[in-house]
Amino acid sequence: MEIKERIIKKSKELFFRYGVKSVTMDDIANELGISKKTIYLHFEDKDDIVYQLFLGEMVEDKCEWDDLYNTSSNVIERMVKSMELIKQAFSEVNPTTLFDIKKYHPRAWNIFQEHKQRFILENLKKDLVEGIEQGYFRSEIKIDILAKMRLEQIEMGFDPHIFSITQHTLVEVQLELLDHFIRGVLTNKGTQIYNEYQPK
Amino acid sequence: MEIKERIIKKSKELFFRYGVKSVTMDDIANELGISKKTIYLHFEDKDDIVYQLFLGEMVEDKCEWDDLYNTSSNVIERMVKSMELIKQAFSEVNPTTLFDIKKYHPRAWNIFQEHKQRFILENLKKDLVEGIEQGYFRSEIKIDILAKMRLEQIEMGFDPHIFSITQHTLVEVQLELLDHFIRGVLTNKGTQIYNEYQPK
Repeated sequence: MEIKERIIKKSKELFFRYGVKSVTMDDIANELGISKKTIYLHFEDKDDIVYQLFLGEMVEDKCEWDDLYNTSSNVIERMVKSMELIKQAFSEVNPTTLFDIKKYHPRAWNIFQEHKQRFILENLKKDLVEGIEQGYFRSEIKIDILAKMRLEQIEMGFDPHIFSITQHTLVEVQLELLDHFIRGVLTNKGTQIYNEYQPK
Repeated sequence: MEIKERIIKKSKELFFRYGVKSVTMDDIANELGISKKTIYLHFEDKDDIVYQLFLGEMVEDKCEWDDLYNTSSNVIERMVKSMELIKQAFSEVNPTTLFDIKKYHPRAWNIFQEHKQRFILENLKKDLVEGIEQGYFRSEIKIDILAKMRLEQIEMGFDPHIFSITQHTLVEVQLELLDHFIRGVLTNKGTQIYNEYQPK
């Protein structure tokens, strides 16, 4: 692996575990057994690492979703599979990570916001339309309102001021919110199929 | 009506229609046909009017909820009736009102936050527990997570940055969110009963 890639990978690991604020350039250098100078050859500062890490994460997220679209036969299966993605992606993530980024790394945060508005929101709307067409989702739902609400809900699930990290894990919160969101739009037919996917 | 009460009532009317920021002490005095001096006999400034108005609103909100508890035979009926309250309360409200208050009147905002955390959150949890006991709500739901989410959702529904006021009315957004929230927790039995309450 290229050194630049290794720095990003290790930073991601540390940020996700401890949050962004409490990880220093020294920590990253020490963990990799390299000098800080080497890091500064590739990145201007920590903000730059966070920014480039986020750029990469958004691309990866797009790939995972494309993959989900290609490998699931209907929208409910896709949503159930996305629960697996959430489990994998977030079981090691410190919830404060996203909030550190919101507070201290606006450049990276803006990328996430754009990704949210362009990519996640559009996918959500597409999913809702498809679910209605297939008879799984109620045709009366107001797609635009519920898609925007869901988008905010994902972000809300990371907010340690709302969901205390001593009471619930990040994965527990995110899965409960997604499960509730799905059930809120299902028809009877959709409910039957969704229940078949549930672990017994 | 006492003059102090009349000032509060008129201010509420103006704030709800135009938002708080764009209404001045002069506007309030002119609308009531009184002098600004008279207002200052009863209130320190606009912030004080907003604060005292909010105090009163929270008390009224509590009374309306007590009334709902006394006049509905089950939790689903209560939630359906609360939709009527939302329609009545918000059909005349400018969505920016709450956000003006958040931004410019922290004292009133804090009262609302406390009301939210103490009163609304506790009622929500009680409703969810009751619905589960009566077999209307799914017993697997995580009450604490969904109640907190719902609380944030109400606030989110007022945010003009999320739900553009040119696309949806405040009532439309709030009703869609509440309907979706309820459907997301219903059992089959609950769904049947909830559907019976829907306008045909």
